[in-house]
Amino acid sequence: MKQTWRAGTMLNPVPAVLVSCAAGGRSNLLTVAWAGTICSDPAMLSISVRPERFSHALIKDSMEFTVNLTTAAMARATDWCGVRSGRDGDKWHGSGLTPAPGVGVSCPCVDESPVCIECRVRQIVPLGTHDMFLGEVVDVLADDRCIDPATGKLDLAAAGLITYCHGAYYALGEYLGHFGFSVRKK
Amino acid sequence: MKQTWRAGTMLNPVPAVLVSCAAGGRSNLLTVAWAGTICSDPAMLSISVRPERFSHALIKDSMEFTVNLTTAAMARATDWCGVRSGRDGDKWHGSGLTPAPGVGVSCPCVDESPVCIECRVRQIVPLGTHDMFLGEVVDVLADDRCIDPATGKLDLAAAGLITYCHGAYYALGEYLGHFGFSVRKK
Repeated sequence: MKQTWRAGTMLNPVPAVLVSCAAGGRSNLLTVAWAGTICSDPAMLSISVRPERFSHALIKDSMEFTVNLTTAAMARATDWCGVRSGRDGDKWHGSGLTPAPGVGVSCPCVDESPVCIECRVRQIVPLGTHDMFLGEVVDVLADDRCIDPATGKLDLAAAGLITYCHGAYYALGEYLGHFGFSVRKK
Repeated sequence: MKQTWRAGTMLNPVPAVLVSCAAGGRSNLLTVAWAGTICSDPAMLSISVRPERFSHALIKDSMEFTVNLTTAAMARATDWCGVRSGRDGDKWHGSGLTPAPGVGVSCPCVDESPVCIECRVRQIVPLGTHDMFLGEVVDVLADDRCIDPATGKLDLAAAGLITYCHGAYYALGEYLGHFGFSVRKK
């Protein structure tokens, strides 16, 4: 039996990523759970940010941002960047995360992150509490430690990525199968 | 050290949800990983669907859909609904999933799903391979089995939700902390 509840943001689990951005000589980090892939080709993702957040103006000014995937080792810093504001101090310093130079965008990426997705803003859609930034992926920075030296392929399973579910962070758990496993011949 | 790769859809992990929809007497199920929360108030989420998918026309005609969260017990059916097309037969029957009546929308929801999020389409944004449907949440159906009878609160940790990472399905693993744990006094 199902109970009917009022509308709420109940999509779970969702990503918990660190968004880095910069404009006018200031750079910041913002933790975002309201993020998703929105198109395969061109590769695009969206992040939603409250207009009152310090990072909102930086992204709007520069029209660039980087989505940095997060790991269990980065969970505390990820949470901290979601609670604190860049208005009150340098969040790179406060979180202990290391800025590394961007490649296809001018804002820094997070050196500790296994995968950094550099994006250019194509559209901003105001929705209510949040503005949605539609980002086109410019390029992807993949850490050597996550690349199998034998195959050159990305091994994200080894990276220890985290996810966000109903207000809490979790590691990934049991492997259940690859896409298409239900129709694959044994 | 980081390698620079060409643009790709590298946001991970992402949701793996079953989208149910109906129009003109036909109902269908579609597995979507390109989904995300986009606004807190009004509560909104987006799903991205290729125009050539059978469900695309059903959602566009009815301007309604339901996002059904998926569990480890539903992993095989979830994968199957992502591989097969509703053009080739009834996916409810083929997947073994059970349609239950919608409450705030006319399309059915998935009875096996712990949480079903009923949505009305507010905007369709064509992006390339995918059209993004911006859905406003109408209401949320929560299964009795996921509600703590003592508190009336949703216990999603017990639901066994799954996530999708780099082409594979995973259960949620180790609990790493609640939002704000990095600044909470001990």
